[in-house]
Amino acid sequence: MDTLGKTITCWAAIAWERNSPLSIEEVQLEPPKAGEVRIKMTSSGICGSDNHILKGSLPGNFPLIPGHEGAGIVESIGGGVSSVKPGDKVLTLVVPQCRECNSCLAPKGNFCEKQDILPSSGLMLDGTSRFTCKGQKIYQAFRTGTFTEYTVVPEIAVAKIDDAAPMDKVCLLSCGMPTGYGAAVHSAKVRELSVCHPGSTCVVFELGGIGSAIVMACKASGASRIIGVDINEGKFPRARALGVTDCLNPRKLKEPVQQVVVEMTGFGVDFAFEAIGLVETMVYCCLESCHLSYGVCQIIGLAPSNSQLSLEALMVVSGRTLKSVCLGGYKTRDYPLITHQLPFDQLHKAFKLYHAGKR
Amino acid sequence: MDTLGKTITCWAAIAWERNSPLSIEEVQLEPPKAGEVRIKMTSSGICGSDNHILKGSLPGNFPLIPGHEGAGIVESIGGGVSSVKPGDKVLTLVVPQCRECNSCLAPKGNFCEKQDILPSSGLMLDGTSRFTCKGQKIYQAFRTGTFTEYTVVPEIAVAKIDDAAPMDKVCLLSCGMPTGYGAAVHSAKVRELSVCHPGSTCVVFELGGIGSAIVMACKASGASRIIGVDINEGKFPRARALGVTDCLNPRKLKEPVQQVVVEMTGFGVDFAFEAIGLVETMVYCCLESCHLSYGVCQIIGLAPSNSQLSLEALMVVSGRTLKSVCLGGYKTRDYPLITHQLPFDQLHKAFKLYHAGKR
Repeated sequence: MDTLGKTITCWAAIAWERNSPLSIEEVQLEPPKAGEVRIKMTSSGICGSDNHILKGSLPGNFPLIPGHEGAGIVESIGGGVSSVKPGDKVLTLVVPQCRECNSCLAPKGNFCEKQDILPSSGLMLDGTSRFTCKGQKIYQAFRTGTFTEYTVVPEIAVAKIDDAAPMDKVCLLSCGMPTGYGAAVHSAKVRELSVCHPGSTCVVFELGGIGSAIVMACKASGASRIIGVDINEGKFPRARALGVTDCLNPRKLKEPVQQVVVEMTGFGVDFAFEAIGLVETMVYCCLESCHLSYGVCQIIGLAPSNSQLSLEALMVVSGRTLKSVCLGGYKTRDYPLITHQLPFDQLHKAFKLYHAGKR
Repeated sequence: MDTLGKTITCWAAIAWERNSPLSIEEVQLEPPKAGEVRIKMTSSGICGSDNHILKGSLPGNFPLIPGHEGAGIVESIGGGVSSVKPGDKVLTLVVPQCRECNSCLAPKGNFCEKQDILPSSGLMLDGTSRFTCKGQKIYQAFRTGTFTEYTVVPEIAVAKIDDAAPMDKVCLLSCGMPTGYGAAVHSAKVRELSVCHPGSTCVVFELGGIGSAIVMACKASGASRIIGVDINEGKFPRARALGVTDCLNPRKLKEPVQQVVVEMTGFGVDFAFEAIGLVETMVYCCLESCHLSYGVCQIIGLAPSNSQLSLEALMVVSGRTLKSVCLGGYKTRDYPLITHQLPFDQLHKAFKLYHAGKR
């Protein structure tokens, strides 16, 4: 490629400061250094945490290129990079996998110590930036930054995918889909209970992209009742198609939604999922919807930094669990090798294949 | 027995009101009604939750007979009682097991819906009391009330134990010992991680009775490092004998104990246990000692009612778990059948036998 080893000039979306509108700017992107990969982006999703960092509710440095849920094709690699080569189709990873740290070596969890989320420096692992704009250093959200024609990320934040992957859609597998699906399968472990306790019950707060992935995972894990909660009833038909058995709009209920969920199930659900990112929903809706003795409150939504989860200590003493997980608990580079190519409206089938171990 | 079917006059310890000293009084105890058991108490332990209810930090009705961690011999039974008979040695159970409710039928958890802890009525299941003193109705803490020569409890709160059980010591198996041991084995599941991840690490906040049971469970579950924390260094020799590898006195540390624990382990522990009942210790010490990616913060100490667990929402998003459990998650009537009799100083061996399935 004629860009090899050269600085690339391309277009990128830049937030010059917190709470400012995104501005499309011409930027300069240096070649990748050792252990880095330069990628020509083909698609990128918008995730709630992009919004958080732009609004300042997650700490970040500006000026910033947002975006982390991306797919693209490797343009070039820095020294020592061995897991991908130019021309490979790849996903960018907001949770990297260095395969060396305590988190990566542990059998559970995935929060690699080289993550750049809490807090986000926006810089490569060596503490420098590859982007400049008008002579100024530009930061990359969560060490990714995908709202650009080209980007550079560390090799540990790149997952190779199948050559047949549809590059305009597959970016969803970089963050949103595994975040919801994995939370139900890996962290809450809906399947584990469903096997020995048929008829397990779930409630999912928010029925957008992440909520839909949670619903699919609950359904695939054998849950018999899946209550979906959203204030936007336009999402209900899709939710029902994916497996939601009861749709609730909290604004149309006479009682608090958690009370309705407890009444509907008799005792509270086995698993409650919060995919919104509001501490009030986490505690009052999600945790209180859980069965006193064994309910699992699984938090997926990212709350603004410094926001406090405040709950009565006695709310958990009877046996409830409160937990969260980032990117579904997947070891991110190990999991997303694409073995099947399906049209977007068959994502449900795709996850069935995944869950059946056909991956 | 000549007491059969008659009201018994005996001695009991009564708190006439919240925060008042216990007074030894002559009380009248009616015969057991249907589904109830009258027990001649032989021993009773003192548990932190007795102190909570006496101080008013857990709601309860007064005048009250405290105590729930008891052992005794069945004096008589009410109609329909089939699981115990007069002369049987039994334990009283603060968490009953009705074997009918959703909690009892579920494979996980043990918080029977007929519990009388949150809140405690202090009355039998029919809403009446069996005790009077000077003509006044007396309540029984947590529907047990063991600081008395005789008591009446529901059959679902009675566990038959072996005829050879040492009645002066076995009361510990009614609450304290399973509370600590089960929290590590059933709820945190130290063993599950230890098997595939040798060298798992634990920290135990408080090294009294419950903390000792936790230490024994961690040791028996294969933990390689067990850090014990207490402000009373007099507890350290016993803790070391039970399996604690490092003893910390937070008052003698220059840095906050959680920081020291994270530094000692490099990354934070796999499992952290709080057996004190202070929300500050739960959040700042216990949760912050946990590994960011997969640490489990297991709360055993009962916090005063209305006290708030307040934590930054982002403290769990990386994959940490916050959970609690009552009485170790044991289905209480199913588990404590005594098959071995050992002197008290061999409790460690006793739990090894238990854990090995020799029960």
